[in-house]
Amino acid sequence: MEIATLGEFGLIDRLTKDITPQNASTLRGVGDDCAVLDYPQSQVLVTTDMLMEGVHFDLTYTNLKHLGYKSAMVNISDIFAMNGTPRQMTVSLAISKRFTVEDIELFYEGLRLACQKWGVDIIGGDTTSSYTGLAISITCIGEAQKEDIVYRNGARNTDLVCVSGDLGAAYMGLQLLEREKNVYYGQYNDLRKRIDEAQKAYDKAVATQSPNSPTPQLLKSQIAKLKSQLSDLATPDFSGKEYLLQRQLQAEARGDIVEKLRQAGIRPTAMMDISDGLSSELMHICKQSGVGCRIFEKELPIDYQTAVMAEELNMNVTTCALNGGEDYELLFTVPIGDLERIKEVEGVRLIGHITEQRFGQVLVTRDGQEFELKAQGWNPLS
Amino acid sequence: MEIATLGEFGLIDRLTKDITPQNASTLRGVGDDCAVLDYPQSQVLVTTDMLMEGVHFDLTYTNLKHLGYKSAMVNISDIFAMNGTPRQMTVSLAISKRFTVEDIELFYEGLRLACQKWGVDIIGGDTTSSYTGLAISITCIGEAQKEDIVYRNGARNTDLVCVSGDLGAAYMGLQLLEREKNVYYGQYNDLRKRIDEAQKAYDKAVATQSPNSPTPQLLKSQIAKLKSQLSDLATPDFSGKEYLLQRQLQAEARGDIVEKLRQAGIRPTAMMDISDGLSSELMHICKQSGVGCRIFEKELPIDYQTAVMAEELNMNVTTCALNGGEDYELLFTVPIGDLERIKEVEGVRLIGHITEQRFGQVLVTRDGQEFELKAQGWNPLS
Repeated sequence: MEIATLGEFGLIDRLTKDITPQNASTLRGVGDDCAVLDYPQSQVLVTTDMLMEGVHFDLTYTNLKHLGYKSAMVNISDIFAMNGTPRQMTVSLAISKRFTVEDIELFYEGLRLACQKWGVDIIGGDTTSSYTGLAISITCIGEAQKEDIVYRNGARNTDLVCVSGDLGAAYMGLQLLEREKNVYYGQYNDLRKRIDEAQKAYDKAVATQSPNSPTPQLLKSQIAKLKSQLSDLATPDFSGKEYLLQRQLQAEARGDIVEKLRQAGIRPTAMMDISDGLSSELMHICKQSGVGCRIFEKELPIDYQTAVMAEELNMNVTTCALNGGEDYELLFTVPIGDLERIKEVEGVRLIGHITEQRFGQVLVTRDGQEFELKAQGWNPLS
Repeated sequence: MEIATLGEFGLIDRLTKDITPQNASTLRGVGDDCAVLDYPQSQVLVTTDMLMEGVHFDLTYTNLKHLGYKSAMVNISDIFAMNGTPRQMTVSLAISKRFTVEDIELFYEGLRLACQKWGVDIIGGDTTSSYTGLAISITCIGEAQKEDIVYRNGARNTDLVCVSGDLGAAYMGLQLLEREKNVYYGQYNDLRKRIDEAQKAYDKAVATQSPNSPTPQLLKSQIAKLKSQLSDLATPDFSGKEYLLQRQLQAEARGDIVEKLRQAGIRPTAMMDISDGLSSELMHICKQSGVGCRIFEKELPIDYQTAVMAEELNMNVTTCALNGGEDYELLFTVPIGDLERIKEVEGVRLIGHITEQRFGQVLVTRDGQEFELKAQGWNPLS
């Protein structure tokens, strides 16, 4: 169904009709000039992210349900990165003419799946049109007790540096998808070109001879063969690489880690989520905390599929783990006194420690060499 | 300066370096995964708006400072429409390559002017790139005491219907700008075409004869004349229509009206801001409040310039006032007992009253005819 059939209010009604706020702090959601929230006992966390088609996502290989899920998760992830609990979300979409009502419903399905997973209420937004492509802007609101909030600036000398999960897989997933896209489209375009050429030759031939003479007949069968090749064109085989795709297409916010740390009685001294790559985020924490750090290459958590894919693409897997973005894992520091406790927390890896600022941000390689860490993370404006 | 020179973090630093939060509720602004707010004594209002180049604004005649100002104001307006006080704002921009650092600084200049006017802190956002055009997404956060918040659903039978300021001027301003744009570009393109033709004739002539012979000399002087006409091309004369332009390009949120109502001891029963046109907004209030209304054409506040422009464009000025969008005036209802008090509030006009739902939404024309109001407001998705 075309979106114009419903209009703005019709579409919003359809997308939000069975949204019922679950949180006590959501007093009023969709339907007025503003949503109304109530946070008398805790502090309010606010984060926002904008995702543009062609820059942040490619709909050639991203389905809209995954995109909705990821758009919500990357915002929820920022609330967890403050040691908070996500509660509400506003969702703004600018939609070009090529999208249907069903497309946007699919996007909302993914969005709501992510929100349901973490108990987040969709409380409003804006739905409008765009000249080209899809633009998504989400603002997520959460809460935390004042004493629980973890900023980026709290890391202290001797603190331990930890990350959750593993690194570089989302980046490898992106490389894989881009490669397959190029291969697939390379073959597709090649076949289309050959069909066009054969069709032109056929048209030329039948202009001077009967369609039943040998040349047109030969060209006709050639065209049929190429068309059949086109329709048989193999869709990419991703077997053995499912984890990489999942990490790229279906990011997960690590609320489970936040909960585990809480249960273990550990309060990180600094924390952020890894969206631009470990190096870049480490530098934010070090800069804002006025400290240095020492990270060990051999401790970087890397999945087997990430390593295999890096090898296949002739890339350095450590570089991928340090600078590949979109992991949405948590990077945090804990006091050295928590060493024994943090070792017990499943899914967390100790990768180094905080030093005095004058020692800089150092990576110690497997063979004991030391390098200054550089932020080569993804720059959306370069 | 090209934006890529600074990169995302460099640009954000530059835009936000001298932003100092002014509100006690802003505990932490730009610079972490989330902003941190504190609202122990009041309820939190959240609104968001997305503005897309080519859909919501045209940079042919909108300068970026005005655009920044308006982008902030339309969000601030939604907080006032709940009878609240705006406090914080997140600002997300997606910027295509044609914009420079100076362009974005200009946008921020306007943004900050609007924020300073109403004491709003910019607490974060996202800055990224877009393939085409500029996309703006703003979320504004405000506060209100629970008992002060005015929803759309509180209008009751016999309540008085009021609007602030005057209606239709922003829409007339847009019509004026679009007309002048077409005239100017019509002349511009015509002259460019004639210059190209003369240039071609000149090139052709000098291929066979000396540049000093009569034909090339004539063509040369023709080209010079056309070029001088091009550079003299009159920029549009807007004298006598300044108010229309101001209303279109430089929207103002009516916090002054909210304050005046408070001082007069009047609490509206329902309120919203007029962004899509009076008819459309009246229907929201009536639908959500379960009431009807009776509006009088002769009471609609219309500025002299609006009326003149409508006449010039051969449009019905009442239709413009009812359905032209972007006025950002306040539409509200007050109990009939406030009649004497509301009459004393400067800048507010009584335009009708609320009825039982079964009477529908009625416009009474100057000659006493009655029509059912229809929402013909601007539909961004049609």
